Amino acid sequence: MSEIRPRPVILDTDPGIDDAVAILMLLGAEEIDLQAITVVGGNVGLRNTLRNALSLVELAGRTDVPVYAGAKNPLLTRLVTAEDIHGAGGLGNLELPVPVTNPTEGDVAEVIYRRAQEAPGELTLIAIGPLTNIARAFLAHPDLPGLLKELIIMGGSVGAGNMTLAAEFNIYVDPEAARIVFGSGVKLTMVPLDVCNSHTLKMKDIEAIEAVGTDCAKAVGKLLRYSHNVSTRLGRDGCPVYDAVTAACLLRREIFELKDCAIDLETRGRLTRGRTVVDWYGVSGDQPNCAVAVDFEIEGYRDRLIESLSRLR
Amino acid sequence: MSEIRPRPVILDTDPGIDDAVAILMLLGAEEIDLQAITVVGGNVGLRNTLRNALSLVELAGRTDVPVYAGAKNPLLTRLVTAEDIHGAGGLGNLELPVPVTNPTEGDVAEVIYRRAQEAPGELTLIAIGPLTNIARAFLAHPDLPGLLKELIIMGGSVGAGNMTLAAEFNIYVDPEAARIVFGSGVKLTMVPLDVCNSHTLKMKDIEAIEAVGTDCAKAVGKLLRYSHNVSTRLGRDGCPVYDAVTAACLLRREIFELKDCAIDLETRGRLTRGRTVVDWYGVSGDQPNCAVAVDFEIEGYRDRLIESLSRLR
Amino acid sequence: MSEIRPRPVILDTDPGIDDAVAILMLLGAEEIDLQAITVVGGNVGLRNTLRNALSLVELAGRTDVPVYAGAKNPLLTRLVTAEDIHGAGGLGNLELPVPVTNPTEGDVAEVIYRRAQEAPGELTLIAIGPLTNIARAFLAHPDLPGLLKELIIMGGSVGAGNMTLAAEFNIYVDPEAARIVFGSGVKLTMVPLDVCNSHTLKMKDIEAIEAVGTDCAKAVGKLLRYSHNVSTRLGRDGCPVYDAVTAACLLRREIFELKDCAIDLETRGRLTRGRTVVDWYGVSGDQPNCAVAVDFEIEGYRDRLIESLSRLR
Amino acid sequence: MSEIRPRPVILDTDPGIDDAVAILMLLGAEEIDLQAITVVGGNVGLRNTLRNALSLVELAGRTDVPVYAGAKNPLLTRLVTAEDIHGAGGLGNLELPVPVTNPTEGDVAEVIYRRAQEAPGELTLIAIGPLTNIARAFLAHPDLPGLLKELIIMGGSVGAGNMTLAAEFNIYVDPEAARIVFGSGVKLTMVPLDVCNSHTLKMKDIEAIEAVGTDCAKAVGKLLRYSHNVSTRLGRDGCPVYDAVTAACLLRREIFELKDCAIDLETRGRLTRGRTVVDWYGVSGDQPNCAVAVDFEIEGYRDRLIESLSRLR
Repeated sequence: MSEIRPRPVILDTDPGIDDAVAILMLLGAEEIDLQAITVVGGNVGLRNTLRNALSLVELAGRTDVPVYAGAKNPLLTRLVTAEDIHGAGGLGNLELPVPVTNPTEGDVAEVIYRRAQEAPGELTLIAIGPLTNIARAFLAHPDLPGLLKELIIMGGSVGAGNMTLAAEFNIYVDPEAARIVFGSGVKLTMVPLDVCNSHTLKMKDIEAIEAVGTDCAKAVGKLLRYSHNVSTRLGRDGCPVYDAVTAACLLRREIFELKDCAIDLETRGRLTRGRTVVDWYGVSGDQPNCAVAVDFEIEGYRDRLIESLSRLR
Repeated sequence: MSEIRPRPVILDTDPGIDDAVAILMLLGAEEIDLQAITVVGGNVGLRNTLRNALSLVELAGRTDVPVYAGAKNPLLTRLVTAEDIHGAGGLGNLELPVPVTNPTEGDVAEVIYRRAQEAPGELTLIAIGPLTNIARAFLAHPDLPGLLKELIIMGGSVGAGNMTLAAEFNIYVDPEAARIVFGSGVKLTMVPLDVCNSHTLKMKDIEAIEAVGTDCAKAVGKLLRYSHNVSTRLGRDGCPVYDAVTAACLLRREIFELKDCAIDLETRGRLTRGRTVVDWYGVSGDQPNCAVAVDFEIEGYRDRLIESLSRLR
Repeated sequence: MSEIRPRPVILDTDPGIDDAVAILMLLGAEEIDLQAITVVGGNVGLRNTLRNALSLVELAGRTDVPVYAGAKNPLLTRLVTAEDIHGAGGLGNLELPVPVTNPTEGDVAEVIYRRAQEAPGELTLIAIGPLTNIARAFLAHPDLPGLLKELIIMGGSVGAGNMTLAAEFNIYVDPEAARIVFGSGVKLTMVPLDVCNSHTLKMKDIEAIEAVGTDCAKAVGKLLRYSHNVSTRLGRDGCPVYDAVTAACLLRREIFELKDCAIDLETRGRLTRGRTVVDWYGVSGDQPNCAVAVDFEIEGYRDRLIESLSRLR
Repeated sequence: MSEIRPRPVILDTDPGIDDAVAILMLLGAEEIDLQAITVVGGNVGLRNTLRNALSLVELAGRTDVPVYAGAKNPLLTRLVTAEDIHGAGGLGNLELPVPVTNPTEGDVAEVIYRRAQEAPGELTLIAIGPLTNIARAFLAHPDLPGLLKELIIMGGSVGAGNMTLAAEFNIYVDPEAARIVFGSGVKLTMVPLDVCNSHTLKMKDIEAIEAVGTDCAKAVGKLLRYSHNVSTRLGRDGCPVYDAVTAACLLRREIFELKDCAIDLETRGRLTRGRTVVDWYGVSGDQPNCAVAVDFEIEGYRDRLIESLSRLR
């Protein structure tokens, strides 16, 4: 009698509303072995992203998953945050109890490296915040990119950005980290702004999620309603859930359409710092270094989210 | 019995294959009074663009239109050229007789300014090369932008560039000039790469043009066949004629769809110098400074080109 | 009986305390024919620099010298000013009557060009503010640099800057203009920050100047005392008078030591925009494009200033 | 009877002629405990710098000191090397036997961190190549800067650079690494180009060194003669030995004059990338983050070098 061993995964995150949904989605996924959550400053400062990560793990009853504190600031610059989108604490108007657990001691770069060494070619990293922690780990351990099965990131854009006209938030916050990651040779999948905005959750989807009835589903419902309000105020139809779409790309790659592209990072520029310069038509002569998500099935994504939430308390 | 006075126009150009088509299209247009052709280094060096402009005016029998030599180099940098697209001399394999006429003496900045002063609010500038000459004129005469009826340019892109992944050729060559022009307050229409690439001339269109039978039509046929070959080699269907589309935007604005946008210029950047950063969704809060062409009727454009060529010898 | 024709000079300035001293020094110089004063925004905004220039010309009884309004803003960017050094109005605590004369009509680029054409190879430009006006004139008339006898500027630094650690004020305000001027081929002399700071006027010098007793000398005394106060507050010994040193370099070149250098302009940079990158040791292989003032005799300078002030009322 | 424990030191280096002299100088220093040599690509590529480091350790009979392979390339960019100064292999015309020992296995970031943890507040790092390895270690272990006694670097300049007019070689090669190091809060001493060039070894000094008679002294003699030739060809008097001066700053700090400054790194710029922007006069309001060497006694330095070489075989 054979058994499929769950796929080892480490999640790097800066919760953040959509991070929170992604965290719960991955905590409820039986097909993966979530070995660690590493936290970075991003949507809000590290103090808050760390607290949010701990609270969410406790909410899900998954305190067996260790949470590590990573970088407070980008590699070269100061942190830029997005409280206007995520609320002052980072989770909109969702108020979770103050966590009773603590972060596990350890350098994030070491944690990732050790796990990668334990299972060469098997570990998947999914990074849904600024790429600071990942770049630090790659810099500390030049052989790390080659030890990973893959790295899936939420970030960048093919068309317009959301932080500036040219740049998406996660990349804008730490373009140098992104440049290191994109130049590292790691097997890379990028879920950009464009694809996440192309299909959004509507109010009926949110209601379907809430109907799961668990505490976690209710929390997700509250997060999505907050986000739906922000989106509506910005004139959009429905709410995009960037990081959760990226989690879906890990769990159900078959519902995604992907395209191999060569991507380089603009780190300078007066208007374009943080731009992912994508060779969409393959005219640069550079080898593709990234699979870019270009489309996905929204129902498959929503159903997978519901499935995860049904497994949590 | 009233009569419509032809609209005064000055053309700034760097011929170039598609410039040549645009020049003949405007020389054959009765509804405009083409007061001058001012030449700039761009697709090829100034020596060649100047010779090409003179030869084309002679071919069309329109040596009444004065040709002026403008800037050899961009404002701050060295000239970059595009012989790979336009051939060594700039007109593909079209060989025109060495011109017997000479450029008219005079600084381009002065010529434009004087003409603008003669008819305040009436003069249209159409610039289909790097914007060096226009920027020089605007810098010399701060009141010039306000004296013009409008400035129509071929340049920039909303999506990918053609010179680099981020930048279109004309803007890439002199981004500082473009920044001065876009910041000048002039009434501005931009015909970007995207719209020009969205509808191309097919071989049957080229044959229809050649069927006009005049020398000028034959010359245009030869230019378009050369360009069609280059395009086919690059894997495209049909040949785009950027500058001639821009001329059509002057002559038949009614066949164009336009959208007002705020546009700023990236002049720095490792990968993005020369990028037109377009606020497509109006999220920046900046006032639109440009009408961007987003679509046009290819038949109307082709027919207008044929109409012009029918009037020339 | 032969007669030496006074040397034709145009002064471009942004008064400014030290500009004011330079203006009076040149207005009182018999060996030059000051044909025009062209004004630019710089130390304070153009409205104030223009008013100051007119008031100073009236104070000196030299309303025969026409004053022209030039550029309000740098070529590509917004104006940065220095009210902390020059006072809100630009002349410290010197209050001059509101001018009764007006600026002469005319584009600065044209004024300079016409004067240069009248006497090819004879006109000296002295520019003691941001180089915006000069760059505009050079861009409008590509042959202008070759028509000038020379251009003497106050600006730049070999060592530290005063606006930032890397950049001197005049260059910092409009680095693109400086790059155009330094690349224009004009015969160029630069009086940098370093040399101006190497010898300063002490209180006894100021008293000697005031002892001249004329209205202009008293006004200069008041300006220098204000400047001396600012300098003392900044921990310096005596007061540097940058622009007046530059005027002395025009009037008494023999008291200056100069060194030919190749200089290029940093226009980008996070910390170094506006830096004059000087090839002090001639290691770059670039041809010198500038004579840099490296030392001067402070007494000769002070005496020449006194001489000028003695000739004015 | 008490005993002074030798001071623990790790040397990061890219040999390189002057690195070689510094390596031997430190290998022969009894007052330090050289715990490791970590190697980086710089003066020549990593393959060569690594081989040179091993050969030098073998020459000195100090194979008890482990040599580690660090970064082949800078954090974000490609390696730039200086074969014109150091010869194709990096050691001029000194030919050492192919090393029989191998680099010790281990990530440089880990090696440094472990040693720092073993003796908090005691470990001195001396880095005489590009700062890539040091930045990687600091990024992997955010608490590392605070665990070190100090970091002494050879790099940067107050006046002109040697790689470009603005930048010194070590900083130019990896400005982002330098920015991370200067912003890390580590106790930092910088031995810049300027002080190293202010006193050079003359031929008589080289002869005095050779007179020591050991193999190591002969090797240093050969290196210095090669360097002396290069210097003479460049028109200098005597040969500067940048990295060995820096080693002297570690061994005999008392012969150095130092000045506390705030220093920031220009990482962009067209002409100034890699510039150490030094607040020499303390006008920026920024806290000093570095002690800059401004003078040293050349005899003390030479004698200390001779002393080290006398202790080696």
